[in-house]
Order: sequence, then structure tokens, then C-alpha cells
Amino acid sequence: MTILTEIAAIIGDKFVLTGQDAAPFATDWTGAYTATPRAVLRPADTGEVAAILKIAHRTATPVVPVSGHTGLTGGTLADDALMLSVDRLNTITAIDVKGRTATVGAGVILSSLHAAADEHDLIFPLTFGARGSAMIGGVLSTNAGGSNVLKYGNTRELCLGLEVVTADGRIMNLMSALHKDNSGLNLRQLMIGAEGTLGIITAAVMKLQPKPRAYATAMVAVQNLDDALMLLNILQDDTGGAVEAFEYMPRNYIDRHLALASGAEPPFATAYDVNIMVEVGATSQRDAAPDAHGQIPVVAALEDILGRMMEDGQVLDAVIAQNEAQRRKMWERREDAGEIAFQGGPFVNTDVAVPLDKISQFEAAVTPKIKAIDPDATELIVAHLGDGNIHHTTYVSRNDPDIMGRMVEAVEDVVQSLGGTFSAEHGIGVSKLDTMRRRKDPVALDAMRAVKNALDPKGILNPGKVIPD
Amino acid sequence: MTILTEIAAIIGDKFVLTGQDAAPFATDWTGAYTATPRAVLRPADTGEVAAILKIAHRTATPVVPVSGHTGLTGGTLADDALMLSVDRLNTITAIDVKGRTATVGAGVILSSLHAAADEHDLIFPLTFGARGSAMIGGVLSTNAGGSNVLKYGNTRELCLGLEVVTADGRIMNLMSALHKDNSGLNLRQLMIGAEGTLGIITAAVMKLQPKPRAYATAMVAVQNLDDALMLLNILQDDTGGAVEAFEYMPRNYIDRHLALASGAEPPFATAYDVNIMVEVGATSQRDAAPDAHGQIPVVAALEDILGRMMEDGQVLDAVIAQNEAQRRKMWERREDAGEIAFQGGPFVNTDVAVPLDKISQFEAAVTPKIKAIDPDATELIVAHLGDGNIHHTTYVSRNDPDIMGRMVEAVEDVVQSLGGTFSAEHGIGVSKLDTMRRRKDPVALDAMRAVKNALDPKGILNPGKVIPD
Repeated sequence: MTILTEIAAIIGDKFVLTGQDAAPFATDWTGAYTATPRAVLRPADTGEVAAILKIAHRTATPVVPVSGHTGLTGGTLADDALMLSVDRLNTITAIDVKGRTATVGAGVILSSLHAAADEHDLIFPLTFGARGSAMIGGVLSTNAGGSNVLKYGNTRELCLGLEVVTADGRIMNLMSALHKDNSGLNLRQLMIGAEGTLGIITAAVMKLQPKPRAYATAMVAVQNLDDALMLLNILQDDTGGAVEAFEYMPRNYIDRHLALASGAEPPFATAYDVNIMVEVGATSQRDAAPDAHGQIPVVAALEDILGRMMEDGQVLDAVIAQNEAQRRKMWERREDAGEIAFQGGPFVNTDVAVPLDKISQFEAAVTPKIKAIDPDATELIVAHLGDGNIHHTTYVSRNDPDIMGRMVEAVEDVVQSLGGTFSAEHGIGVSKLDTMRRRKDPVALDAMRAVKNALDPKGILNPGKVIPD
Repeated sequence: MTILTEIAAIIGDKFVLTGQDAAPFATDWTGAYTATPRAVLRPADTGEVAAILKIAHRTATPVVPVSGHTGLTGGTLADDALMLSVDRLNTITAIDVKGRTATVGAGVILSSLHAAADEHDLIFPLTFGARGSAMIGGVLSTNAGGSNVLKYGNTRELCLGLEVVTADGRIMNLMSALHKDNSGLNLRQLMIGAEGTLGIITAAVMKLQPKPRAYATAMVAVQNLDDALMLLNILQDDTGGAVEAFEYMPRNYIDRHLALASGAEPPFATAYDVNIMVEVGATSQRDAAPDAHGQIPVVAALEDILGRMMEDGQVLDAVIAQNEAQRRKMWERREDAGEIAFQGGPFVNTDVAVPLDKISQFEAAVTPKIKAIDPDATELIVAHLGDGNIHHTTYVSRNDPDIMGRMVEAVEDVVQSLGGTFSAEHGIGVSKLDTMRRRKDPVALDAMRAVKNALDPKGILNPGKVIPD
């Protein structure tokens, strides 16, 4: 009996995809990583996941977990491996309104969790462009970030409990819903961001937050990034830390958006170099309820601050969203980033972070380095300015792996010199293995190898990812 | 040459304490755990810590790290081991005001970090009674909690970077100051809360927060815990989550405080069953600056909410601190908890957490179980109601290990039935090893053993702690 027959006997024939049925799983969203899985398995529940892992462990067969398949680093590349899709573990088991938690399967789509929380006037705050496809399993496995990290933290700050299937097919129950739980080594935090190399996440308890009753959302043009950070600090102090998003789009981002995205409109009548999308949330009635003049206090406060900074010359232009449609339009401009960055080519894309006050130094230093390698290269930047995370894309003049490799190194050299990281929120997958080898502390790499080997001694879980040999 | 001679040659004779000099290190603050270390070592810096570990690793000599020595679980018990004190690694290397981070050695005392942040109008928000002795190394190693977790999170949410010396004496550099950094397995989160069993933390980058410009602090008597939680939710929604502390002290806590703490005063003229200390912080000028009538808006808002709830009969009595002295007095009542709980005896003490809305069920269920074991036993509860963390002490009628063991089991049975944890913020040390064995998921225990063995193959780092055999 082949292992596929054995697995089919447990999860059902029609949930073992091979040949043409498995073909769509050979390539991820980027199109850059292609490999043919031996089969795609779609277990129905945690017990079936555990049964598959038991068989894989016994036979030393590689298993690559996949959920939304919209990662950007080749983390689900499954060359002759069993690809284990968690898409059928898509139940929202419970929403605890009082306790403000959601218990969810790994296959729940991020936007489904958003909708479920919304029904109870709560939010699951993590969000990014791919929310309509990304699933909780992948969100946790990559410790996804996005645009609201500034206020609510990364995925690891939003997870209270986990259920994980181990490499040898046992079920590890860490499904706590508690805000304080120090009972031994924190395996939950270890599993989050491990990209499926230490275990397969099958379920989780996620934190929910009160839903802001009103938003003040604006596009703001400023002189330079220093003034943008001043605006951020003024807003944070004024609102007690209620800034939910603070996104930087330079002039060439706006231009590219207008050229490539359908229905795109310019944010201002004039074009500016430094464009910021800012959003402040208001949870209290005092800040959110219209006053006697019909003004919403949180919006009035933003208007007031922008007005004063405009008088002082720090703010050049500003548009505040007057309704939800205008607000959505502002968000779309930012959330189209993935689409517009990955058009055209050849290009190399990075996901770096530097301390907030170093972003302008990053910009100044990186351009000459890029031009020195390829004078015709062009750049695209979009950044979560509030948390220092920059998505930098370089479009090179020809598809030359040597030039492209040197471009990545040039960007990373600048980042490293500024105390930054080569991997902020997309993870490592296969795309940054070389960088891990070059730039990560060697003692830390050794520790990662030791932990990996301890928890997956046969090396069957998402092999060849995250940790370089 | 003995290893002590060898170590003395590196760190200096006078920093190798033996005999009478080491005697004070035999017993921790609780007095419950006593063991004689072979020597107490006081290295000057990370390099010396690494040198000691290299020698310990070569000779398979146990090393027990110690910092403030005010833990409550016997986590620093060092029977014939080398006790490695980080107290000389007490430099605050940098306060980055713009980036809102502090870079500190493991020996920096928590209250010193508070003072250093305060000079820049910032706070390091983590706080608890032992802040005058607890050091950052211990705070990180136990993932300390305290009274402000509700707003700011546990220690692990407040740490951006770590420096760790490994079991074989290498220095692992994870000293990032970034808010997004997904570069491989998260060893930082693994080290935090590991109680020195996986490595010795020597330095860290901690997050700072804007200092509230004003506080509204009050003692509030309510009918019952359900009404207390209603008050918490109303306040959170009204202030956009600005509640910094929400502490529960039942009648017998107040009584015991009046009996045992010098200078203690009753919170109200009448005694009530359910007493809450609440504190709201205001960071914005709008909430913190006195209005035309000299009223501070955040205080007025609290007054207003309490007034309305008093009219509705949910709040029975309330006193708002009118100045910093009155505020400190309220905090002292709460922070005397350690002192007053650990007087008298014999007693058993637990550090449990349950979902917020289960605390009254916990109280109702636990008392009859305790009385069934020892009819003369009395209880003391003090709880961080905002995060579900209950410190429950049972004073038994005689020093009988069997009765005391059954008491702990009784409390933990109730906690487990309510979906809680037996260890919220004090850690495991040696005091909860039996509980770990009994109650922690066995698959998780196996994974902890595998990770421990991978990172400390000779088992020299704080042996016999956290993970049961």
C-alpha cells in the first residue's frame, strides 16, 4: 500500500489531490516559486492532520503546510513533498464577546474572522492586502504584520492559544485564552513565525479588540519624513496612542499606482514627494459622537492638528475622508501595493525594517548604491512608517541573477548599517535563506538548527525553509 | 587548578564568593527554599559571563543565574551549583527618546529603569511590589507581569531585543530595537520566561511608553465582581483602553492589611466585600490639563462614571485620589500584598489565572473545597482583576505537607475546571514542578524537554527547574 492510499483511507479519496487536481498548488501567488507536490492533502480536522503526520513521520516523507498560498517568500514550495492544506479547518468555533477572544481553525480566512468579529461590534485588528485569501494558519506561521501593527502589535501579540500537530503526529494542546500564563517554556511563541518547520498549527485563540466607533482618516503631504514623524508623535500624544495606521507613499508610488491600478485617482491636485495615509480610531463616545455642530471630535482633532502644522509649513496639503467610501479609497491606494509592485519586471523585492527615524537615511543611501550596479534601475518604496517597515522594490534593466543578487545585498547592507532587519513581516521561506546565512547571528543560527532538530528529528516539516544548512 | 581558581583568574578573586560571603545567597526572599551554592560569581560583563559558562560547560558544572533574588518559586535554588549573579551588569547603556527604547544590562534594578525613563518623560510600564530589588534579568527570565499588564502587556510584549549567553559560553546577539523582525525562529521569545534554563540573559532592549500626564486613581466598592467587570468595560470603552490597573481586594485582604501593615488605613468608613483599585492614565493634553474650573478631564470622567453607577446602585462607595500622596497610599495598600500574604503561617500560596468572568465562580468553588480539607483554614485573595490573575493563599491549621499539598491541588482543580492556568506570572521554579507534571499537556512537556536538551545538552543551566523529569 502506498502512503497516498493509506492517507486516502483516512481522509477520503477526494481529499487527496494528484496530477491535474494538484497542479494549481505548484505555483504560489508570486509565480516566482514553482515545484510539483507529490500530492495535495485536504484533511477535515486536527485528528486527520495528526494521522497524516504519523504516516509521514514513519516513512520520513516531507510535509509542507499551506493555507492561503499568498505568501511572498516561497515558504510553501513543495518539491515532491506532501502538501498539507488546512483550508478545510475553517470553522470559527467560538467568539467570546465578554472575554474578547475568537477560537478559530487554521483554515479560517482572515477576512472571515474580520466579519465574524464585526457582528459583535469587535474587531480582529490585523489586516493587510491579502486578507481575502490569507488564512489564520499562515498568518500565525509567518507572524504576519500589516498596517495596524503600530497600535495592535504583530500576530504574536494577538494570539493567546494554539493547537499544534507535532512532527511525529501528536496533538499539542496550548489552547489557553488567558492574558497571563507562564507555565514553562513558551512553545506558542516558538511556533508562531516558524513557518511550519516545527509543527503544524491547526487552531488558535485570537484576541479581539473593541471596534472603533469612528475613524479619522486622511492623506497628508509633508515636506519630509522628519516632519512626518513629528506629525505621528503629535498625534500619538494627543490621542493616547490611537493612531491605527501611518503609511508612507512617495511620489513614485503614487505615479505607479495611477498608471497601473484601475480606478486609481491622485490624492491631491498637486503631486508631492512625501504622502502619508494616517488613520486614528476612536473607541469612546466622547471622541466618536457628533457634537452640537455635527462634528466628530476625533476628526475635528485631526483637522485641528493638520491645520496648525499647515500654518507652520510642515504640512503641505491634506484631505480628510468625509465618508466611508472616501476612507476605503484611501486604503485601496495603499493596499494595492502588492499588485502594483509585482507588475513589470524583472525586479527584486525586499521587506526590511529600520528604526523609525532612519527611513530617510535609508532612502538617501540606497539609491546611489542601486544606480552604481545598474544605472537604469528604478525603485519603488512603500512603507509602514509607524513601525519602520519598508517594502523596497528595484526594477532592473535585465534579468541577470548576478545583478539582482547584488541589488538585494546593496539594500540589505544599508539596512544592516542602520541597525535594521532584512526580514520584517514576510518571513524567510526560501527567498531569504542566503541572507539568513550571511547576516543572522551565527550563534542564533546554531540554536535554531538545534531546536529544529529537537522538534523534527527526521526533518520532514517544511524542509529547506527558514533555517539555512 | 580548581574551576573556582580558574574563574577567579578571569573575574577577580573578590567576585568569587564562598563560605560566609556566599551565605546570604543560600536563601531567597521567601525563606522557603534553602540550598548552599558552591560559590557565588559576580562577573562584570557579558564576556565574563561567557567565560564562566565555557568553563562550566567543559566541566559539566551546574550554573544557576540569580538577579534580584526576590522570586517566589525557588527558581534560584543552587544546591552545590555555581550561582551566577548578574548584579554587576547594571548599566543602562542607552535611552533612545525618539525610538522609545532602553538598552539595559540584566542587573539593572527595575526601579532604576523606571527612574531613568522618567527623566525623559517616558515610562517603562511594568511594575510590581518588588521593583526595588527585582532586576531586568529576572524580570525577563520569569516573564514578569504585575499590575499594568492590562494596558501594556507582560514583559515579553515589552522586550524588543536580547543578548544571551548560551550553555556552551557563546554570546547570542538578538539585540534588535525593531517593532517588526521576522528573521527565523523567535529565540528571544523562547528565552523570555525560560527561567535561565536555556541561556543566561545578559542585556536587553526594552520598549518605553509615553508618560501619562495625569492619572485618575480611585478605590471603589461594588456589590459584586460582575459589577466590577461592568465598571471595567465601561471605563475601557470610555477611555479607549486607558485603564492601567484594575485590582481586586476582598474584605479579608483589607482586614489583614490593616492588621499587619504599618500605617495602613481603611479605604472607606464602612467595610465592603468587593474593593477595587482602579487607575486610568491620560497621555493627551486634552484629557490631562485642568479645565476652566480646575478640573482634570480624565478625573472628571471617572467621577462621572462612578457617580452614574452609584445612582444605579452598582457602585456602593468610591474615593478618588486628590493628589499624588493619596494615590501612592492606594498603591501601597495593593503593593503590600507580598508582605502581608507571607506573614503568619503555615500557608500555601498560588498564582493562578482564570478568564476574567470566572473569578467569582473561582471564589465560590474554592472555599468549600478548602474547608473540606481543613475546617480551620482561612483564605487570602488579591487579584489583578483586569487580567484574571488571582493570588490565593491558604493558611492551614498545621504544618502538614499532605494537607498543604491537597490544598494546592484543590485550588488548581478549580482553576483547571474554569479553563485557567496554575502559573500566571511567578513562574515554575521548583515549587510547581509537580503541578507541571500533573497538569501541563504531556506533548508540550515532551517538546520542552527536547528543546532544553537541544540548547543545553549537558543540563548545566539551572538544573531541576521548570521542566519536570
